[in-house]
Amino acid sequence: MTQPVAIEQTVHALSDRVRSARPSEVRKVFRAAQRPGIISFANGAPFLDGLPFEKLAEDAHRILAEQGSAALQYGPGDGIPALRSHIVEIMRLEGIDARPEQVIVTAGSQQALDIAARVTVNPGEVVLAEGPSYAGGMAVFTSLEAEIIHVPSDHDGLIPDELEKAIAEVRCSGRVVKGLYTIPNFQNPGGVNLSSERRTRIGEICRDAGLLIFEDNPYGLLGFDGSTLPAIQPQFPDITLYFGSFSKMFAPGLRLGWVLAPDWLHAHLLNTAETGALNPAVFNQLMMSAYLDDPSWKTTLDAYRGIYRAKFEALVETLAECMPEGTQWNQPTGGFYLWITMPQDIDTEKLVYEAIERGVVYVPGTAFFTDGSGRNELRMSFCLPPLEDIRRGARILGELFTEAAAKAQ
Amino acid sequence: MTQPVAIEQTVHALSDRVRSARPSEVRKVFRAAQRPGIISFANGAPFLDGLPFEKLAEDAHRILAEQGSAALQYGPGDGIPALRSHIVEIMRLEGIDARPEQVIVTAGSQQALDIAARVTVNPGEVVLAEGPSYAGGMAVFTSLEAEIIHVPSDHDGLIPDELEKAIAEVRCSGRVVKGLYTIPNFQNPGGVNLSSERRTRIGEICRDAGLLIFEDNPYGLLGFDGSTLPAIQPQFPDITLYFGSFSKMFAPGLRLGWVLAPDWLHAHLLNTAETGALNPAVFNQLMMSAYLDDPSWKTTLDAYRGIYRAKFEALVETLAECMPEGTQWNQPTGGFYLWITMPQDIDTEKLVYEAIERGVVYVPGTAFFTDGSGRNELRMSFCLPPLEDIRRGARILGELFTEAAAKAQ
Repeated sequence: MTQPVAIEQTVHALSDRVRSARPSEVRKVFRAAQRPGIISFANGAPFLDGLPFEKLAEDAHRILAEQGSAALQYGPGDGIPALRSHIVEIMRLEGIDARPEQVIVTAGSQQALDIAARVTVNPGEVVLAEGPSYAGGMAVFTSLEAEIIHVPSDHDGLIPDELEKAIAEVRCSGRVVKGLYTIPNFQNPGGVNLSSERRTRIGEICRDAGLLIFEDNPYGLLGFDGSTLPAIQPQFPDITLYFGSFSKMFAPGLRLGWVLAPDWLHAHLLNTAETGALNPAVFNQLMMSAYLDDPSWKTTLDAYRGIYRAKFEALVETLAECMPEGTQWNQPTGGFYLWITMPQDIDTEKLVYEAIERGVVYVPGTAFFTDGSGRNELRMSFCLPPLEDIRRGARILGELFTEAAAKAQ
Repeated sequence: MTQPVAIEQTVHALSDRVRSARPSEVRKVFRAAQRPGIISFANGAPFLDGLPFEKLAEDAHRILAEQGSAALQYGPGDGIPALRSHIVEIMRLEGIDARPEQVIVTAGSQQALDIAARVTVNPGEVVLAEGPSYAGGMAVFTSLEAEIIHVPSDHDGLIPDELEKAIAEVRCSGRVVKGLYTIPNFQNPGGVNLSSERRTRIGEICRDAGLLIFEDNPYGLLGFDGSTLPAIQPQFPDITLYFGSFSKMFAPGLRLGWVLAPDWLHAHLLNTAETGALNPAVFNQLMMSAYLDDPSWKTTLDAYRGIYRAKFEALVETLAECMPEGTQWNQPTGGFYLWITMPQDIDTEKLVYEAIERGVVYVPGTAFFTDGSGRNELRMSFCLPPLEDIRRGARILGELFTEAAAKAQ
């Protein structure tokens, strides 16, 4: 490649959007998390060893042997009817009453978020989000040159009064608030649940202010005790775009998620989905449908909830023994994540590279804010590592942070 | 849903981009093509019955039974190394010398085109393309509010002098020409090959004018006689984004394609791919790699070339017998498409609905232009229907168009 920079300057090839994009620091951390032997608390990746692989293998064999020509052909842009019917049943578990023709299946809920943002958000507009919030979700909006402004949360999730305040402030500054991006269940990374009262109140605030609600719900079925609060969508179907995913409740490897949107957005979302990717993989959808045809998927999910609870308990027990004084964490009742607040003078972004040197990786808190907050915070995913790695990794971090706290004195 | 329009107006939910998007007429046609029993010349869908489904079924079973946890987990944003190595070997067949780390695997080449356009094209900029050109490819650019301007082609493909003229004209109008979108092999829908001399000349024109080349090549290995012209990319690697797909040479059902871009664009493309979809499905990539591990995939492809040639010959034989006087078509030497030009007074867009009534569907020529051209033209895909349906469908269209021609007298 001769003088790439020169060529780039000649061709002016980057879009203004890409020129304005900030390089993702957090990607370094995730790359490190791939290293063999490292104990990773970084990835929001589910524990998969409990899946019925033999059954899945037989499903795959049957589908390809019996209907290979259909399974490997193009398919409908909104997904195959059989899977959309299953999705409707799954959403019913969280109080959502929808019809299969309202569902658009996508290559993971990340793609669903992406098309929803492309259809609804203009450059310069503001999308409100919990602080902290899912880095990948916020990146979808910022990649469209929208700005994320955080709304403070507490142990009951997003604070309604703070939401009203944020809307008013943004509007005073003369800008458009397009919507609220929220993860109401076992939030990523905060681990908190948005209370029922607040779901109603926040929906009313968004409706009265003419905001869309981007309700991202990959973790709803992963409460440790199996209980789930009703989604926001049923109370505010006209303004809510609801995003579901099979990546956490089953596995990410088939890349399947979905969006349920108000009817007046459906055609625009489908058009954007088809322009961007034609259709979700038919074979994968047949695999997912076959898995859901057998009701034992719920038993498998129950087993997962127990596994995740045990891992969470092992993590907090160990942290309680070895983290420096002044360290705080929430008490999630489900999901994948523990959000930890260190003493003010601990810089988790600086320390993560030392942690990687010692064989452990987490995600620094700054990854979950667009405004530079979170320097003394971090997210630990407890879902993937084996129990003994969780204990060992937590102790290594305990030592590292205790040393850092001592130095900071 | 109460007063969706009122809500839409309250929420102002659509992005300006979506507001400006034209509804896709052609989608109606493709919906019709799904009807059971209809003979479809519309879909650019490959013939799959010749695939070794039993082997594919065993591959899938083995992958899930032996490495299910890895196959169903998240994976690298640019794809698994094994598949990227296969892709490098495949590109070598068309004269491309690349390294696996330069390749980004995507959920079909449609997604690759989409991320490439998002990274490089600004609203209001112009992308040049053959006239006619692939509707889905052009839609990627127009969905970003870029404008497609067509450059005339002849039996040797895009005409270099016309390309220079188009660049000059657009620049006179004060606008930015960002690049050329071209399908050099067995073009969709024209079926023509861009000659070797023109590949060089067109690359020089783009390089000298500071344009990017979007080289879309899903059909390169599908020449009836197995011969392929070298790609444009090897001569102009600094300005060429090369798009490959498994959808036509294997099957669309795994949704796998790729982009090979200049090194200075790689990080931006990967960032955009990960923001939009995280990563391509690992299981599907393992399936594709396993298929390519067995060199017999080339024998299967040879068989396909014979099948497509036979279908093409059956189609043109029948058309020669039954189409009205003054009908013309090209003589593709590979690929999926026959491009037909009817007498001036035949409106293929009006007639397609009558054709559907009679049990046959094609794509009207207007779908392949952004400027309303193509009224008396149409695309017939000969790859998917069985031979007898090709003959029967062609006769039905012959009758329809002959009646229309008589009426037009």
